[in-house]
This record gives sequence, structure tokens and C-alpha cells, in this order.
Amino acid sequence: MAVIDTLRATTTITTILERGAMAVRPVADLEAAYAHKALDSDILLGGERKNQPPEGFDGGNSPYDWPQDRVRGRRVTYTTTNGTQAIERVREVPRLVLAALINAWACADFLRQLQQPTLIVASGSRGAPALEDVLAAGAVATHWPRADRTDAAEIACAVFERDRTRLLEALRHSDHGRDLVQLGLEADLAFAARLDVSTVVPMLDGDGWLRPVAR
Amino acid sequence: MAVIDTLRATTTITTILERGAMAVRPVADLEAAYAHKALDSDILLGGERKNQPPEGFDGGNSPYDWPQDRVRGRRVTYTTTNGTQAIERVREVPRLVLAALINAWACADFLRQLQQPTLIVASGSRGAPALEDVLAAGAVATHWPRADRTDAAEIACAVFERDRTRLLEALRHSDHGRDLVQLGLEADLAFAARLDVSTVVPMLDGDGWLRPVAR
Repeated sequence: MAVIDTLRATTTITTILERGAMAVRPVADLEAAYAHKALDSDILLGGERKNQPPEGFDGGNSPYDWPQDRVRGRRVTYTTTNGTQAIERVREVPRLVLAALINAWACADFLRQLQQPTLIVASGSRGAPALEDVLAAGAVATHWPRADRTDAAEIACAVFERDRTRLLEALRHSDHGRDLVQLGLEADLAFAARLDVSTVVPMLDGDGWLRPVAR
Repeated sequence: MAVIDTLRATTTITTILERGAMAVRPVADLEAAYAHKALDSDILLGGERKNQPPEGFDGGNSPYDWPQDRVRGRRVTYTTTNGTQAIERVREVPRLVLAALINAWACADFLRQLQQPTLIVASGSRGAPALEDVLAAGAVATHWPRADRTDAAEIACAVFERDRTRLLEALRHSDHGRDLVQLGLEADLAFAARLDVSTVVPMLDGDGWLRPVAR
């Protein structure tokens, strides 16, 4: 199964792992994050509420908050409004990976090799589909043959096929993308819109930590 | 609000009205349909269960079951597995119309003139989105400016924009379309795939009958 929250949780967590963090622990609520830090002060806290880093956090939900020299060798506890809630709901699933536009091919490649039915969860927002998540779901699903896709997967592929040559423009026009642009975070959209630039596939282990799949 | 069940309820009901039926009454269950006929033997019964006309019905869910000389001036009680259930759920909404590919522009034109927020319900099937309904939702939503569309509407528009020059092919590849082809009903797909060929907009009146909007 792949969980997608393109703007910005799954994009940024993938990037944090790519930059050398040991592991990222997704947690649903702020209290769990603070409790984690209280138990182990070496842990970094990351994520957002209302698109901004919560009080006392080491960084927000932007990839630019997590340079290599900050994250290398560290563990990061991460909580966001949407993406980490979606992960929390499905965390018992075996081989749960995080997908985004930046690692779409890598995720599809890993999942296809399992040779099992694959569920792709486009997180969305407030119960409604989010364009950027359906777009990224399409970027993953397009690597399966048409005959193997459900109608829902094919809908996602259609969005991706229409917008694949203008991904940044699509993110800019999405509801959440517009919010982020208004907050001055357009650079995060440009970062998230780069297709297949990462080979990192974050996968949840039995202890609740996301680590890169060894491939 | 527009309710869409492209294959085949909203396509066929639009066609029955176009061919001169006085009114079509959507009902959710078979028992209600038979009860209706028992009260007024002049009523025709139409619709399907498992894609076939139920026992004692005057026609199924195919537009070819309803030629002009059968329906002109008549009233038809209609029940299907999916589409009439969707209508039942939202029937209290004012100005509820039925949309399909065949009358997408006409529906959009009527709804836009109301100058109110419009909800487009793509019925889907068994809780999952159906490609043909999202496609038709896009054919309707594409008549609103991009800035007025939610992400969900934009997703539907993307499907329509990708497939608008190959609508029949898209219907053939949809999950439900494949079922209908297997049942020998490919002609119904070809009928449903004709964009904007009808100006009939079926609207539910206060007595529970669908009638063409006077425009």
C-alpha cells in the first residue's frame, strides 16, 4: 500500500530520509510528538499545524527546513494535519510505503515487484479529494498496465496524463497549493513538482519507524 | 445539483423524455415500482436489476428499449441498481437534474444560469468512483471557469479533457462498460458516448416526477 500526501508530508519525509536521517516516526497528534521528545531529547520534531511548525519544533513541513547537516544520522518524529493521520489509520498494513511525485516511479517499482494487489491512498483533505494527491496517485498507478487498474486508478492516471508536462502549474492551481502560495511557500510546490527525482521509498517497520527500503 | 449515472440510467431517462414521455418517476426499489403500476395500469415500468429488465417490466435500462412510439405521451416508473438510488438519497434538493454525456452542455447551461454553487454527483458503483460518471461530471464541470472548480471538479475535468476525443473507448475500458460489452450491450455504450447531442434536462418536480426543464 502507498499513502500519498504530496503537499507536503510525504514529499518532505522522503526528502528527510534521502538526506540521511536514520528514521522518521509519523505520529497523529502533537501530544505524542512532545511525549516522544521528552523520552529522548536527541529526537528532532518536525511537521505542521495550519501549515506552520508547532511551538518547540525543530522544523516545519517544508523540505527546506531539513538540510542534510541537520538530519544526517538523526531520528525525526513527525506530525501533520493530514498525512500522518492517513498513515495512522492504515499503519497495520504490511509494506506501507509513502509516495509523492518525487519518488513515484521508485514506489511503483517496489510495489509492482510484490506482485500483489496494490492500494494507493490519495489522502485528500477534509474528506474531499485533493488534486495534488490524485495527481501523484496517477504518477504511481501509470506504471501498471491499463487492464490492471480500477476505475479509480484510471481516473488518477487521467489527471496525471493531462498534467504531467505542467506539474508545477497543476499544484499551483490546486486548493491546497493556492493556500501555500499565499503563505509564501511556493518554493515547496516547485520542490514537490519534480517527478521521479528520488529513489527513496520510505516504508514503515514493525516498530512504527519509516526507513528507506533497501532496493 | 446534477446526478449522473452515465451507464445507463441518466442517459436512458434523458432519452425517454426526449422521445416524448410525459414524465419519468425514479423509484429506489422494485416493490415501489410494482405498487405504482398496480395503482395505475397505464404506467410503463422501466429499469434493471443485474443489467437486465426485471420480470413484468415494459423495458430495461437501454435507450433502445424505449422507441418514440412506445413512450410518447406516457408516464414511466423507473428503477435501477444504482442511479435511482442516488436520486433517492438527494431528492429533497431543489432543482435536481439528471446529467449524462449526451446532455452535459445543456445541464451545465441550465445550472450556470442559477448562479449558485453547483454540486455534481457522479454516482459510481459499490462505493467506488466509476470512470464513466467522473467523465460525464467533467463534461458538465468543464463549462465553469477553472477558478470556480473544486479540486474534485478539476479531477473530473482532467478525465474529460484526456478522453473527450475518445469517449467510446473510455466507456469500453471502464469497469461497468466491460460488463455491458460482455452482455452484448455495446450499442448502449456507443449511444451514451455521444457528447451534447441532447438539449433535454430532466428535473425532479415536487411530486417526484422527472420532466424536461422548459428552457
